[in-house]
Amino acid sequence: MPDPLRIGLAGLGTVGGGVVTMLRTHAALIAARAGRSVEIAAISARSRHRDRGVDLASYAWEDDPVALARRTDLDVVIEVIGGENGPARATAETAIANGKHLVTANKAMLARHGQRLAEAAEAASVALRFEAAVAGGIPIVKALAEGLAGNAISRVMGVMNGTCNYILTQMETTGAAYADVLAEAQRLGYAEADPSFDVGGVDAAQKLALLAAVAFGTRVDFPGVAIEGIERVSLTDIEQAADMGYRIKLLCVARMTPEGLEARTQPCLVPSRSPLGALEGVTNMVVVEGDFIGQTIYRGPGAGAGPTASAIVADVIDIARGLVMPAFGRPATSLVAAPRAGGGTAAAYYLRFALTDAPGVLARVAAALGDAGVSINRMRQYEHATEEAPVLIVTHRAPRAAIDAALVEIACLDVCRAAPVAIRIEQV
Amino acid sequence: MPDPLRIGLAGLGTVGGGVVTMLRTHAALIAARAGRSVEIAAISARSRHRDRGVDLASYAWEDDPVALARRTDLDVVIEVIGGENGPARATAETAIANGKHLVTANKAMLARHGQRLAEAAEAASVALRFEAAVAGGIPIVKALAEGLAGNAISRVMGVMNGTCNYILTQMETTGAAYADVLAEAQRLGYAEADPSFDVGGVDAAQKLALLAAVAFGTRVDFPGVAIEGIERVSLTDIEQAADMGYRIKLLCVARMTPEGLEARTQPCLVPSRSPLGALEGVTNMVVVEGDFIGQTIYRGPGAGAGPTASAIVADVIDIARGLVMPAFGRPATSLVAAPRAGGGTAAAYYLRFALTDAPGVLARVAAALGDAGVSINRMRQYEHATEEAPVLIVTHRAPRAAIDAALVEIACLDVCRAAPVAIRIEQV
Repeated sequence: MPDPLRIGLAGLGTVGGGVVTMLRTHAALIAARAGRSVEIAAISARSRHRDRGVDLASYAWEDDPVALARRTDLDVVIEVIGGENGPARATAETAIANGKHLVTANKAMLARHGQRLAEAAEAASVALRFEAAVAGGIPIVKALAEGLAGNAISRVMGVMNGTCNYILTQMETTGAAYADVLAEAQRLGYAEADPSFDVGGVDAAQKLALLAAVAFGTRVDFPGVAIEGIERVSLTDIEQAADMGYRIKLLCVARMTPEGLEARTQPCLVPSRSPLGALEGVTNMVVVEGDFIGQTIYRGPGAGAGPTASAIVADVIDIARGLVMPAFGRPATSLVAAPRAGGGTAAAYYLRFALTDAPGVLARVAAALGDAGVSINRMRQYEHATEEAPVLIVTHRAPRAAIDAALVEIACLDVCRAAPVAIRIEQV
Repeated sequence: MPDPLRIGLAGLGTVGGGVVTMLRTHAALIAARAGRSVEIAAISARSRHRDRGVDLASYAWEDDPVALARRTDLDVVIEVIGGENGPARATAETAIANGKHLVTANKAMLARHGQRLAEAAEAASVALRFEAAVAGGIPIVKALAEGLAGNAISRVMGVMNGTCNYILTQMETTGAAYADVLAEAQRLGYAEADPSFDVGGVDAAQKLALLAAVAFGTRVDFPGVAIEGIERVSLTDIEQAADMGYRIKLLCVARMTPEGLEARTQPCLVPSRSPLGALEGVTNMVVVEGDFIGQTIYRGPGAGAGPTASAIVADVIDIARGLVMPAFGRPATSLVAAPRAGGGTAAAYYLRFALTDAPGVLARVAAALGDAGVSINRMRQYEHATEEAPVLIVTHRAPRAAIDAALVEIACLDVCRAAPVAIRIEQV
């Protein structure tokens, strides 16, 4: 059997602890699968003496992760420090510069510096792998970069933030408002004290930026992702959408269009009975469509020590087996700076209005839509006790600009009692 | 860029044609992803001059696939001839013996000879890859052997025969009987003229045997798979199961138990709202559970030229990238001959009886179940016009032997008007 693969682990939080546990628990299994044993040789973390419930005495210790990345007795550095700059980035850069393979779960770092790190890794002939950075334990980077590598990918989309999906499904199940469910999620540890990174869509958008690069051979373009969070999703819309056969999901969608790369993270309606619509709680799901394969779907836990460790260790085993391929599935220098197509491609939309209950009102709304070139697929007006008539419309496919033009006109009508709501319906 | 990877293609049916089309259509894309160009150098098929709609003039031609496998100008042989012995096997063995990597879609051959072929490939230091043999285009072998390689897998299960799932969902949708739906499926080309390979469960069982080997590190043991087809699934059971919140699926399940490897392909009930239960038509789905990852699910097209070519070309790209790993994810000689645990592990069961409508009848059935140690979770008796009372029972978990003992006793009761039906309910 060849020499053991020697690992340096930078970071010993939940995920780092999971990696230690997995590599210890399954040392024999992993050696059998990898064809060589995989051993942690050195660890770096902020506090050496905090009790983490694992015995670290057998590992060399470095207080400084950059010093760890410089050690000459390591083959691979696992970076699970986190943060887009600071010690995480310094560790990653140092590891690569010192000829070590890098495995990271750090989506924030890769969303910002992925291009440069990938180029550096290829120049140094080392692997840069990040399965754990996207959709937790689901081997989706592998599916895209390897399993579907013969296809031209047409669309990648999914639910990639468990916190948001938990909040949205809880709102639907319990009938509680966004703020209440968020507070409960924070109490249960499903949402951070500062939840903006999750509920604002940034976390999901970072993952999408990475997947899009793999799928379409484009440079990582996180600033190019149009981002809208779930903060303004109302219980009313969740309930009305359900009544029309839809559920609201924070959806990540990337598509290659003739105008360029369309990449957006935003609340969308999907049919309740579709796999995405049926997704409950913190589970993640990614849908990939390619020209030969058709549609494939991947579902699993998007976070947690076990699933994240599973993804990291899989990357390590690939390296142990000798696989060194470009981080994004083709040479980083060949990745294309695609124009940004924006999120404005045509789609059906769910529209909700609160209208004065008076003769001719619906006609005026319908006329405004018609003037903007938006045609109506389905419409419902609900029974109401107040003078405000709730009206739902599902449009046929229309450009976002046409929807916006109609909404501006309708919002100015004296019969319009509240700001109209428009949510994209994603074809799944 | 390194030398092109030179392919010999043995077989030019639907799948072979798909491979040619994919490698041509995406030559540049594949070269970018593989890091080198991938070229078909030679082809062998039964008839050179049949019009297949693709121009074959630029490829060397071999009438004999074994001669193709011997050519010295090839790196990889793709075997898509089919059949568990004959030219397919001879081609595979010759290719490996001549130091060529082998990519095959041939589940029948691997289910019988996978162990020997894997050993031969490893001895010759070539890759033997078979993504296309299981669940069509879904990269499930890759997910198991690579993406989840750090986990101890506890269960693999799925719907892996599109024909059966199409028939079962059509029966439910249209209310037509098995024989009628099968005839229609044959007319539409979804089922073979001789459908026994599909509807009898053999095709799915072969796939399961291969996945189990990868998942559990066991020798391929196709004869050890307990097989029951869908031929006896009745419309009545589909409808009654639906009424209890279940759907009937031809399920493949492999689990490692303390008694050994449990592997079975049989009609099972799964909750209608679970991902497996919601699966319609010819689509395939595989569920994988591991100790760190938890549950992951993979869904996609299980057959067809495009999806199958996608899987084959992905295997070829892996080889072009330099990945040579054991066929079943660890050295073939290390695969364990696991004892067969049979299909008798405890489960909840759906039971259906046709009973004489008379006082005390239900009590006698309930007593028989109780005597065998089977306890009742839910029971329904339906309104009925005849003297035969349809009674449905969902049991708590019980060993199959206990269920069988109870059924024998009940079948002997004079109040039992037809053979009782028992279908396992798989926990999903």
